[in-house]
Amino acid sequence: MSEAGSDEAGGDSAGGEKVQSKLSAASIGPDWTKVRCPCCVSDRVEPLVLVKLGEKVGPETKRWIIRVIGASQKDGGAALLAHPGEDASGDIIVVSAPRCTLLRATEELGLCKIYRNGDMEAFSYSDRDNFKDSDNMEEFLTLAECQYIVKYELDGLRAQRDLRIPGLPDSCTLHNRDNIWQKLRSFGVIVDTFPLHNPDKLKNLSEAWYSGNQLAQPLDSVNEYFGSSVAFYFSFLDFYTWSLLPPALLGLTITYFSGEVQKEMVESVSGPRATDIEGDSEPPVSGHMLQAVFSMLWSTVVMELWKRRSSSLSYRWGTLHLAERFAEPRPGFHGDLGVNPVTGRVEPLFPEWQRDLRMALVSVPVVGLFLGLVVLGMMCFYWAEAQVQHLHNDWDSLLSQTLLYMPSVLHIVYTNMLATVYKTVAQSLTEYENHREESAFQNHLTAKVLVFTFFNYFAVLFHIAFFKQDVPLLRKRLASLLIVTQLINQVTEVVIPFLVDRFISAPHRTQSEDDPQEEKFRNQGTLPTFPGLFAEYIELLVQFGYLSLFSCVFPLTAVLLLLNNLTEIRSDAYKICKLFRKPFSPPAANMGVWQIAFEVLSFVSVVSNCWLLLLSPRLQDMFQEGGMSSTNVLLLAVLVEHVLILIKVIMAVLIPDEPDWIRKKREHIEYSSMQALRQQVQLILLHALAVFHVPSSV
Amino acid sequence: MSEAGSDEAGGDSAGGEKVQSKLSAASIGPDWTKVRCPCCVSDRVEPLVLVKLGEKVGPETKRWIIRVIGASQKDGGAALLAHPGEDASGDIIVVSAPRCTLLRATEELGLCKIYRNGDMEAFSYSDRDNFKDSDNMEEFLTLAECQYIVKYELDGLRAQRDLRIPGLPDSCTLHNRDNIWQKLRSFGVIVDTFPLHNPDKLKNLSEAWYSGNQLAQPLDSVNEYFGSSVAFYFSFLDFYTWSLLPPALLGLTITYFSGEVQKEMVESVSGPRATDIEGDSEPPVSGHMLQAVFSMLWSTVVMELWKRRSSSLSYRWGTLHLAERFAEPRPGFHGDLGVNPVTGRVEPLFPEWQRDLRMALVSVPVVGLFLGLVVLGMMCFYWAEAQVQHLHNDWDSLLSQTLLYMPSVLHIVYTNMLATVYKTVAQSLTEYENHREESAFQNHLTAKVLVFTFFNYFAVLFHIAFFKQDVPLLRKRLASLLIVTQLINQVTEVVIPFLVDRFISAPHRTQSEDDPQEEKFRNQGTLPTFPGLFAEYIELLVQFGYLSLFSCVFPLTAVLLLLNNLTEIRSDAYKICKLFRKPFSPPAANMGVWQIAFEVLSFVSVVSNCWLLLLSPRLQDMFQEGGMSSTNVLLLAVLVEHVLILIKVIMAVLIPDEPDWIRKKREHIEYSSMQALRQQVQLILLHALAVFHVPSSV
Repeated sequence: MSEAGSDEAGGDSAGGEKVQSKLSAASIGPDWTKVRCPCCVSDRVEPLVLVKLGEKVGPETKRWIIRVIGASQKDGGAALLAHPGEDASGDIIVVSAPRCTLLRATEELGLCKIYRNGDMEAFSYSDRDNFKDSDNMEEFLTLAECQYIVKYELDGLRAQRDLRIPGLPDSCTLHNRDNIWQKLRSFGVIVDTFPLHNPDKLKNLSEAWYSGNQLAQPLDSVNEYFGSSVAFYFSFLDFYTWSLLPPALLGLTITYFSGEVQKEMVESVSGPRATDIEGDSEPPVSGHMLQAVFSMLWSTVVMELWKRRSSSLSYRWGTLHLAERFAEPRPGFHGDLGVNPVTGRVEPLFPEWQRDLRMALVSVPVVGLFLGLVVLGMMCFYWAEAQVQHLHNDWDSLLSQTLLYMPSVLHIVYTNMLATVYKTVAQSLTEYENHREESAFQNHLTAKVLVFTFFNYFAVLFHIAFFKQDVPLLRKRLASLLIVTQLINQVTEVVIPFLVDRFISAPHRTQSEDDPQEEKFRNQGTLPTFPGLFAEYIELLVQFGYLSLFSCVFPLTAVLLLLNNLTEIRSDAYKICKLFRKPFSPPAANMGVWQIAFEVLSFVSVVSNCWLLLLSPRLQDMFQEGGMSSTNVLLLAVLVEHVLILIKVIMAVLIPDEPDWIRKKREHIEYSSMQALRQQVQLILLHALAVFHVPSSV
Repeated sequence: MSEAGSDEAGGDSAGGEKVQSKLSAASIGPDWTKVRCPCCVSDRVEPLVLVKLGEKVGPETKRWIIRVIGASQKDGGAALLAHPGEDASGDIIVVSAPRCTLLRATEELGLCKIYRNGDMEAFSYSDRDNFKDSDNMEEFLTLAECQYIVKYELDGLRAQRDLRIPGLPDSCTLHNRDNIWQKLRSFGVIVDTFPLHNPDKLKNLSEAWYSGNQLAQPLDSVNEYFGSSVAFYFSFLDFYTWSLLPPALLGLTITYFSGEVQKEMVESVSGPRATDIEGDSEPPVSGHMLQAVFSMLWSTVVMELWKRRSSSLSYRWGTLHLAERFAEPRPGFHGDLGVNPVTGRVEPLFPEWQRDLRMALVSVPVVGLFLGLVVLGMMCFYWAEAQVQHLHNDWDSLLSQTLLYMPSVLHIVYTNMLATVYKTVAQSLTEYENHREESAFQNHLTAKVLVFTFFNYFAVLFHIAFFKQDVPLLRKRLASLLIVTQLINQVTEVVIPFLVDRFISAPHRTQSEDDPQEEKFRNQGTLPTFPGLFAEYIELLVQFGYLSLFSCVFPLTAVLLLLNNLTEIRSDAYKICKLFRKPFSPPAANMGVWQIAFEVLSFVSVVSNCWLLLLSPRLQDMFQEGGMSSTNVLLLAVLVEHVLILIKVIMAVLIPDEPDWIRKKREHIEYSSMQALRQQVQLILLHALAVFHVPSSV
């Protein structure tokens, strides 16, 4: 590495070990490493990412890391700018990126940017001058993109040959093609790498986002500050919350007008079930039926509309044409060195069959075990329910009345705890499966969690609906689930972190305007890491499931969810802005695998609603009056269900997933990015021919 | 056009109007137009395509066409080689292609060829020297590919400005960007464009294909001679026929061992239905049930395996990476001139909403009308069936016994006739919808025909199975359908064309070895045009439907189909080789929309078999003995069906559609074709920089 480092050596090590250089964000300080490249003239360097070193790391190791960060890519470096922080022996390195590294990475990631003519085009480095603002990085790229590019470059660092890291014992050597960043992390040299907040931008964002009474979220600013994967979550939350309005209105109307439902609700709350008390003056269509039909339609329409909205957001944020397919393996991937048959690069390889074996022999049984625990919990719940009912019949006191709710509450708590444990287990299982691509890792992890979530949250409800066929019990259960789950979520997600932040962490972290810049940066590291959007998406998915699968038995579901989500938007926004470190967020073109999960739920909703429709007491009466045998009624229901699923499939095929204008734009981007390369080759060849054949013209 | 033509004028028009130049295939005759390009040195020119002109076309028009064919693409020509045939005033033009045009088109179509290291790579013109055989076109490209490229270039000819065609009245002018070939066809100047047979290759192929008793088809040679879309049909036919063996064996076993089935078959053939005569010594699982379960598994496994086979064929034939997305609009497409928002080319545009309107207001009602006709036919069939039964009861003679079969036979004939009429109607409707891409046209056409085919062939069977719930009638109906339909198909597809060919057309077409080459070429034009593979695919699909949906009630289905297909392979091969003109066949990566149709059928087969399983008399008895109410039995069946569909979906997701090694190859091809361009740009730029900055080094 000394080759790469020697060029920059004059920049910092010659500058002395103890120079107290204030890290100023507004100009290029003397301590930023310089990257040799012809185009990087920029007036100011914005600190993007902070690297925290281990306590025992010596100055020579730190200098070596700074050199690697600053070295050009040809020399095996990251071609970034590094600043030693307060002094050369401190434990932080502040990293930024020069213009040409940012631009090259923009092309590599396949981001789209605004072309000279105002359209979005896939960015091409050789055509950079024709893109708007390509000389001003702070306008051209969002803060989140710049920070992700820094992470991308750091994660992509690979040793070009076997080498020893200065200041570390001999056991800590790097082998050829080792992932440098990951190794340094495993040696304990690097403790943390996280993006830095920009206090001014954060202040503006939080004011526009959750401080006032505003209805709309500033999604573009969220994308700008937190990146598109976070922005997609908030966009979906926004879209979904607004689309709760129709079912909420319908639910309120039904509850208001339908005496039946009120009666049933009173029954379900007061415990004993005594249905079949029906008047004759009731309308032929009950709220139950109305809501079931509405749920099917609603879940389909919402998902189709969201797909279209999602694709226009993706166009707007320039992520329509991401090139993630031939990416480097993800940092956690390990295996024997070999030649990748696709790209021809030397990198760790891991045989497919071994992964399949691990999945079949380890992952599947463990997941099965947890599903078994869910069933066990369900059985315990039923047993406890029966015991409590028995007790209530014997005692009939206020205490036993309260005890009636205990099994439900306990089971819900058990369910939530199991989910938390399972999440860690799923993470380690997926880690053990050793997937090469980040996307494959995410997909397998999400699939694992989703199977469990479906089981964990919905098994009991399905059991009640399909086997017990007990509508009042289903209603009672759904109501308690909605209320308890949401209370638990709000408490664990917001209240506890807020209290911890305010009363435990904050006193250690008071800072004044006069603190040196380093101190402020360092302080951000004391915040807990952002736990990711996984739990948030799961929460939305479970909500969506309650609503689309079972809401017809409890019309107020949508109203409760709407109220919950209006606070959820604000609390999630507050959380990500204040309570956690800023997360890295890769550019994303959509919600990824979550999109599929929601669509699967909307398919299951057809089955579930058809069945609940069949269970509707009013419909049962009608059929009995009409003299249809129960077999024929069932046959009719099955037929209706199959036809509805068919219609749903046809609708999903017929309604395009992206609006027509987006399709044209996307095809244009794909066409011109392909064509641009071809034309360049031809043009350049022509020029080259002209030059070589007529040398006198030079 | 005179600009473009004047360069080549010396080549043929100066050569005289009446030069009797024997068209020899083995050397470049004096009458082949020459294309100015630096690389086209080739010893022999193979005549590829014959263009037949109208009778009244004058020599100056012919000369103009030859000039356009021969002019370089820069001048708005096709850059092909044209030969005037016997003489300059004859009515044929023989077209061939020079090496550089073929190579450029190979890259444009995205074909893969064998690289120097033995792997398949997407062909790149600038890297041509590293591809195997790229100097010998007859080895490098298949005959079918060469001929398709000629058609592709001719179809792509567009007028570069308004111009008058010499020798035609003023009404026949070409406007800027008009499709020349299509206009010439509509003016009656060009009557026909078809690829020429190569008698030697054809002889070899037919010997290896259908003359002997060989079991395997020479699929690679079929691909070489007829192109990949034809080869995919025959590969599927082959694969499907072999995969009929297991169900055929099972069917034979069941028929042999199961007295019940034999009894029922006898009953169904002798007419009156008297079921419920069951012995007690029978095994607990009937053949009916066995076959139903087997059908579900079989249809799933077969389609999954075919997808994998299909992708390896596609790799083998170099069509894994076709670039058809930004193709020119198909010749039949018309609209107002405008700028295509995707490619920026000036071409006819047709608004999307207008197409949607046409589909909604014209296509859908007309298709609906035909579906109505199907239902009408079905109702007439039932009415006639009842009448005949009535008559038979009254008369009870041999005549009335025969009459019993009349309604079935008549209905099958009606069904087939309706299908023929509908095919023409669907063609015109899709033409009217004015799709831009050939693939969209094909998809809409196929979708139309498929909806109708499902209805037409299966409506009665579904009606009998699901509404009448009459297993013996279903069996009778299926047996007659299988036998009658296949007889009709064999007669209309093979016997009639064969007789026509042998006794009506052939006498006019006797040719001897001494005939001039032109005469032999001209003779090929007297054969009828190949009707395409549409009807063949439909036939296979209907077969597959009978087998996977209903075969459990008639175990001999697979045996009959197997026998039929063994002759079908040979008769189809004979047909395409001898009875028709050689068709153009675009490169194809799979069966296209047919793949989806077969998969949909295999889904429906789960529903259908679950239902037929439920109808199984043995199962009904078992449930009655077990004391289950019919409602519970039905519930169980619905549950089983949903679980099976779920398993099928999971299997379809889990089993990869392409073998692992093909996936790696495909990704490698995609990666290197993208990377190759990037690297070229960078390399060339580096060179160019070196050249421009250090002029002394030149």
